[in-house]
Order: sequence, then structure tokens, then C-alpha cells
Amino acid sequence: MDKQHLFKNIQKKQSFLCVGLDTDIKKIPQHLLKEKDPIFAFNKAIIDATADYCVAFKPNMAFYESMGITGLTAFEKTIAYLRENYQDQFIIADAKRGDIGNTSAMYAQTFFSYYKVDAVTVVPYMGEDGVKPFLLYPEAWVILLALTSNKGSGDFQLTEDKQGEKLFEKVIKKSQEWASDEQMMYVVGATQSKMFLDIRKYAPNHFLLVPGIGTQGGSLAEVALYGMNNQCGLLVNSSRAIIYADHSDQFAHFAREAAHALQREMAGYLQDKGIISCKG
Amino acid sequence: MDKQHLFKNIQKKQSFLCVGLDTDIKKIPQHLLKEKDPIFAFNKAIIDATADYCVAFKPNMAFYESMGITGLTAFEKTIAYLRENYQDQFIIADAKRGDIGNTSAMYAQTFFSYYKVDAVTVVPYMGEDGVKPFLLYPEAWVILLALTSNKGSGDFQLTEDKQGEKLFEKVIKKSQEWASDEQMMYVVGATQSKMFLDIRKYAPNHFLLVPGIGTQGGSLAEVALYGMNNQCGLLVNSSRAIIYADHSDQFAHFAREAAHALQREMAGYLQDKGIISCKG
Repeated sequence: MDKQHLFKNIQKKQSFLCVGLDTDIKKIPQHLLKEKDPIFAFNKAIIDATADYCVAFKPNMAFYESMGITGLTAFEKTIAYLRENYQDQFIIADAKRGDIGNTSAMYAQTFFSYYKVDAVTVVPYMGEDGVKPFLLYPEAWVILLALTSNKGSGDFQLTEDKQGEKLFEKVIKKSQEWASDEQMMYVVGATQSKMFLDIRKYAPNHFLLVPGIGTQGGSLAEVALYGMNNQCGLLVNSSRAIIYADHSDQFAHFAREAAHALQREMAGYLQDKGIISCKG
Repeated sequence: MDKQHLFKNIQKKQSFLCVGLDTDIKKIPQHLLKEKDPIFAFNKAIIDATADYCVAFKPNMAFYESMGITGLTAFEKTIAYLRENYQDQFIIADAKRGDIGNTSAMYAQTFFSYYKVDAVTVVPYMGEDGVKPFLLYPEAWVILLALTSNKGSGDFQLTEDKQGEKLFEKVIKKSQEWASDEQMMYVVGATQSKMFLDIRKYAPNHFLLVPGIGTQGGSLAEVALYGMNNQCGLLVNSSRAIIYADHSDQFAHFAREAAHALQREMAGYLQDKGIISCKG
């Protein structure tokens, strides 16, 4: 999916919501455990309930991998279900991969040729040849970690070099030599809202994938205020606050309500910015 | 496996070789494609052929993941085969994982509770809470990326802060607040041999996992000269130069020869250092 297509979906849905599928067998409603594939059954219900209000889904690979073959099978079924029923959804494998060139090439094959997702999150630590193999798939996106939402993000990402440039700024600048904003996005945590103004100096046109609202405490209002550009330029993720909004057999209804509430709020920010003309 | 046990295995085998299982369906001998599970058949043959001369095996997750469920099944069988037949081998999942706390916890579960490997390679970019969940398994090891073997390692890892401290040095220093040398190792590429002296200043007692000899051009002699400590402190990996030494039906024989040649060279360095008393 190209950038214009994604922007049109945002205008149409009046939403820049990404629903994170961090599906944990220990947290899904108990009645689903009777299903043959409880993880897929949960994902299917969440997708059907929330797809009206979001433009992207982001399965978090760790949760599927932790169950081995069973988990990966559920992941594969989830992608197939999305592809068959929700062609306009942007699918992000949140995998945080990155290695030396020939190994990154295998990871790129995994996500873009085998699973056929739209985007994968990539770690910049290994530099250019760790990222470039992912860029050989012209339809696909690299979402590079820049400034993450967690407490430990300060340990290395904020380290300043002799010129006062922080590591995450260096990542954003350097990586623009490898790909344009048509093929690369950055992860910037919602908990870093004051940094969005700085980031927009270096990456005015890029889409930013923003985790960290909800459970992690980031503010959607601040992210929209400091991070939104004229083509929105934001995909804001919510995982736990949507998918675990409720644990009864009404969980899908409550997930839909949680997604709808975020979509309504997002519609307001899109209207404020003049990106849509009336609230949905 | 604890540090003393690993050291004893190194003395017994007169080797600090790690065989990298970067098994690629496109590169294995053609006659294996008739097997029901060609990837596992190849791994089994390589393991049987080289186990006498190495102390560790390192499956590279990207290669298994690129084949989806089929690849992961072969990985699972490989681990089970090693556990059943070669209890003294140290098993490293080269996965280069790392995420926010609750997601890293799921990756730790994947590798230490589900697959039950001895060690996993971890990326430091996300800081303390991205690493710590892996340290909750007292028998298991984190092998943290410090200075990698690839060309792009210079893009960010060598960035100096205002005090002249390079990023990889900061990673090595900071991470020692999180775990001791009984539970943490560092990845240092063999192509960085002149840096080993520096690294030994900060981490005199840690084991270092060293990729990059062979195909990537690093020198085993320099790694041993600059990197070895009194308990060896090195696991030197070779993947392609061993497992793809030959592509005929004699591939296992040639892999064994390649591993044996490295073991002989390693025995010499261990003797020079006084770690073993006679060459094997």
C-alpha cells in the first residue's frame, strides 16, 4: 500500500488508529479456550469488531512466537483473514528485526515474501546493511525504531554526540539516505510527546508509528498536536486498552467501543488540522 | 549451562568453536531435497559431523523463520536433537530480539521456556527494560549486541558521546549494571579485532560471541591474540565456511574437516595462553 492510499484510508475512516494484536493466551476471555485455535478466534473477533474504526493492524510477533508453531499458525491465519476480508487495512508485523546483510535479507523474505505483510518494524543498531535488504521490496515499508515509548529508551537513544545530536536523531537523519518517506516510517513513542516537534524538523513528511497511548500513559492529544502533518503522518497504536477492554463474552463489543472512542477523538484532530471537513 | 561448565567444555574439546546453523534451503546439497524435512536432515548431518570439534551451535532464526511453519518445525526438531544427543553443547538462538518490557518478556518465554535454548542474542537499542526480562531465567544467558561484524556497524555503534565514549562501549558499561559475566556475554565481530583490546578493558571476564571469521573476513589469530582471557572468554562462530564447505553428498565430511581445522588452530591458541597443556 503506498502513502497516498494510506492517507486516503485515513480520510475515509476519519481515523489514524492502528489496533495492536498483542494476543496473549493468558489474557483472552476464558470461553475462547474451547475453540480449536483460541488465538485466531480472538483475533478474528477483534478484527471484525474494530476494522470500521482503524486503518491498520499490528500483530506483535513476540506473542505468537511465545507459543511456537501453534502461535505462528494463528499469526498466519490472522494475516490471511485480514488479506481476504479487509484489503484496505495496512498490516504491520511488529518484529523489531535487524541483523547483518545476508540475515536481514532472510528476515525481509520472511515478512514480505512469506507472510506478505505491508510493513515490518526494524532495529537500526546494525546500520545500513542491516536495513537495506528490507527496502528491496518496492511495495513494502520499513518502520525504523527511532525513539521508543519505554523507560529504557533513555539509556542509549538519547545519548548526545559531540555535536549535541541525539542517537535517535542520527538514526532519523542517516536513514533518509537509504529510503524516502514513501518506503520508510519511524517508531516514536507517544510518551515522548515533547520530542515530536524536534522529530518533525528532521522528518516533516514521514509517517510515524506511535505506540504508548493507553496503558503506557502517552497522550493522544499531545501526539496529534505536536506530531500531525498535512497528510496526517501518524499511525497511533493501541493494543491492550482495546483488545483487553473487557474479559467477558462481550469482549468484542467493548473492544469496538474502545476503538470507536479513539476514532472519534482522532476525527476531531483531523478536522482541527483541516484534513477532513466534518466529524464522522 | 554455567560459565565454569562452558569453560570446562572448552578445555575438554580444546576448542572454542561455535557452529552457526544458517541453514538455507537454496544452499543445501540437492540430494537432501528428497528428504521429508531437508532442513532438519541437513542440520542433523552437520551436527553429527562437527560436534566433536565445537562447544556450541548457533541456529540463526532468520533462516528458519523465512520458511514459516516448516522452518520453525525444523528448528524445533534441531533443538530437540541437540538436547537428546549432545547435552554438553551450548545452544544459542541467534534471534537479535529486544522490545519494551512486556514484549521482551514474551520473547524470553519463547526462547527460554518454549524452545529451551541456553542463550539468545539481544539488541540493546531499547535499553534496560528491553533486556531485563531475559535475565529472569537464572540458567539462561543474554548475549547482547555490542560491536557487530558488518560494514554498517560504524553507522551508529561507533558514535562518540561528549566524553568520547563510543555507543558500543556505553552498551558494555551500562549493561553491567543489569547482569554479571555469569549471565551476560557480548557480540563482538571478528572484523573488529583491534577493538578487542579496548573491549577487554571494560569487560575483562565476559565471554564474547565472535562472528565474522571466514566468509566475512575476520582473523581468528587476531581475535585470539586480542580477545582471549584466562578462561578463554571467546566463542568464535563460523557458519558458511563450515556448513557450506561442500555441496556434494560428501558435505558432512567436508564440514567436519573444516570444523576440525578450526579446532586445531584454536587448540594452538589455548595452549599459547596456558589454558590447555597439550594440543589435541
